[in-house]
Amino acid sequence: MRIYGDRVSGNCLKVKWTADHLGLPYEWIDVDVLNNGTRAPEFLALNPAGQVPTVVLDDGRPLAQSNAIILHLADGSDLIPADAYQRAKMFEWMFWEQYSHEPYIAVARFQVRYLGKPLADLDERLVTRGGAALALMDRALAGGGFLAGPLSLADVSLVAYTRWAHEGGFDLSRYPAVQAWVGRVEVALNITD
Amino acid sequence: MRIYGDRVSGNCLKVKWTADHLGLPYEWIDVDVLNNGTRAPEFLALNPAGQVPTVVLDDGRPLAQSNAIILHLADGSDLIPADAYQRAKMFEWMFWEQYSHEPYIAVARFQVRYLGKPLADLDERLVTRGGAALALMDRALAGGGFLAGPLSLADVSLVAYTRWAHEGGFDLSRYPAVQAWVGRVEVALNITD
Repeated sequence: MRIYGDRVSGNCLKVKWTADHLGLPYEWIDVDVLNNGTRAPEFLALNPAGQVPTVVLDDGRPLAQSNAIILHLADGSDLIPADAYQRAKMFEWMFWEQYSHEPYIAVARFQVRYLGKPLADLDERLVTRGGAALALMDRALAGGGFLAGPLSLADVSLVAYTRWAHEGGFDLSRYPAVQAWVGRVEVALNITD
Repeated sequence: MRIYGDRVSGNCLKVKWTADHLGLPYEWIDVDVLNNGTRAPEFLALNPAGQVPTVVLDDGRPLAQSNAIILHLADGSDLIPADAYQRAKMFEWMFWEQYSHEPYIAVARFQVRYLGKPLADLDERLVTRGGAALALMDRALAGGGFLAGPLSLADVSLVAYTRWAHEGGFDLSRYPAVQAWVGRVEVALNITD
């Protein structure tokens, strides 16, 4: 398997962590997001949407969308709960991540860290909705544990940008249950970078 | 099962169509999105994210996120491809829908149809990215058929707002493969509303 990705992207690291956790061999191919690497014709031939991560599976077929990729890699593993309701909750969190978390938490971080935008100039919508996303997670995690029962792809998916939220100006100490959960997931997935 | 939804929301209709296609009995409970029905305390107790659709399963447990709900309802049915790669492509389209299609196509329609915004005043980003999403689908569907092999939840998910794209100012006749696919999916799912 080849993973086309950029380590500045939490979406790409989800794929790396899942493959590492499951012991799946892969070749990592750097695609420089900040310098239009996803606009190169050879990359667009793999993924017409021009987004990383994209993987090329062992049989040569491409697959995109971070959450779709980790679902495929983890099929049949303990990262997908066997219980039908826990599995459904895992999906709920993963779709929520792409719609109600990543567009605020990850985008704020990108603008501040990589585009150099001052925190005070961030769109108020990013700040408000990102804070609301973290508050919702904090309530869900108040009892400890993981998002959907045992450690699952919901945790892989949501930890990616949550652990970097401070880079976009979100103070995780205001969400102590989230902060503790980030620590648990980092240990469980052996995340050190 | 109780489905809390609003028929002005394509996300809610995805759940209705899936349940109808699979012959699953349900009670439909109208939640008026345009009049803050999702902000009512009794609704927020079911779904703290305050979003429709939300379902309450036969055992009383709630579940949110349209795509997570239809995955749960269709588990083991022919709406989820048995082939692992087709299934992965189905997931790819479903996550792409929430990240790269719905935020432009559905939001443009909502602003024009329900908020009364003139087409000329739409944010250029909605118009450009919505058009890019439809163009990408048009290339993928150029050979006919469905999005991920046989009819699947990828088609259920993407047809919801694509068939209404004209209400947000997108001219589907510019995307003939998409237009033909909408017709095929409407027939396959018996969509008449």
